[in-house]
Amino acid sequence: MTEDRLSQTVEFCKLIDREKFVQRRTYLSDGKRLENDAEHAWHMAVMAILLSEYANEKVDVLKVVSLLLVHDLVEIYAGDTFAYDEEGKKTQREREAAAAERLYSDEFEEWGSAESRFAHTLDNFQPLLLQHASRGRAWREGGRRLSEVLERNARSAEGSRTLWEFARENFIQPEIDRGNLIDDID
Amino acid sequence: MTEDRLSQTVEFCKLIDREKFVQRRTYLSDGKRLENDAEHAWHMAVMAILLSEYANEKVDVLKVVSLLLVHDLVEIYAGDTFAYDEEGKKTQREREAAAAERLYSDEFEEWGSAESRFAHTLDNFQPLLLQHASRGRAWREGGRRLSEVLERNARSAEGSRTLWEFARENFIQPEIDRGNLIDDID
Repeated sequence: MTEDRLSQTVEFCKLIDREKFVQRRTYLSDGKRLENDAEHAWHMAVMAILLSEYANEKVDVLKVVSLLLVHDLVEIYAGDTFAYDEEGKKTQREREAAAAERLYSDEFEEWGSAESRFAHTLDNFQPLLLQHASRGRAWREGGRRLSEVLERNARSAEGSRTLWEFARENFIQPEIDRGNLIDDID
Repeated sequence: MTEDRLSQTVEFCKLIDREKFVQRRTYLSDGKRLENDAEHAWHMAVMAILLSEYANEKVDVLKVVSLLLVHDLVEIYAGDTFAYDEEGKKTQREREAAAAERLYSDEFEEWGSAESRFAHTLDNFQPLLLQHASRGRAWREGGRRLSEVLERNARSAEGSRTLWEFARENFIQPEIDRGNLIDDID
């Protein structure tokens, strides 16, 4: 039974490899290729360690890191990966593990804790950093407008006012000045 | 000063993007392209969360995660990135942060804690999982021998006997059987 459970967990570890195949719409800092979901999660997790002191509220850094690393995995659980769950093959402890991961995801989505709010801020801050580093390539190619970026970041200040203001001044404004983002606000 | 310090930390966050450009010698599970360092670190960190119960000793999971996410960054610190350190521009708190990261790295390299031993096991287990998932492509192309793999894994059992035995039976042996790894032991 133990080995069966280990085998299933290892199978899951193999299947999550597919996060590396999921392309995002942000270019890496060299502007040459798009980032993937695994790279994005890694980058945010490290940034959580480096930037946590700028959160509006005191946060448990390692909880933020876990939220950032794990919350997307639930989609895999919910998909075809753990189909054997429905077949009743899962042990009680596996159900508990899946439930724990769902809790992480729910906490992230519900913005209910200081950690989830800061995680959301990083989830927005990191792509803005890359947009600027790649000289606004994705914005330019997509003909993006400032109002769209502000809409997407409507709640970014909730996790860290400091990081949101930094991003607005140092990532967004320079790309407006360079003509890579269309300023459609008044 | 605060903003200057934030600017420097954000600059570092941008520079570590280069971990995504560093290719490893292991193919992803689909066998189509090589993994990079950032993807490797993300995968290990998630696996630490999922597999920590199989560690030989009780481990602080989130400490293992931090070791796996951060220990490679010191190489960037030691390189050209934080050159301003030597120019004396760094604040006391930045020096402390850099020192803390160096401690993580040293702890990882020295195998001195249960967490570092388990982190090393995962650092070996994850590539073996991908070798098997990609049907031994890198081993086959490199003409690799079992003795080399065992040498590389000489200390893998120190972090988790269970995971090392699982890997030997489920990742290594099948690739010997398929003829992708040369069995040169007796």
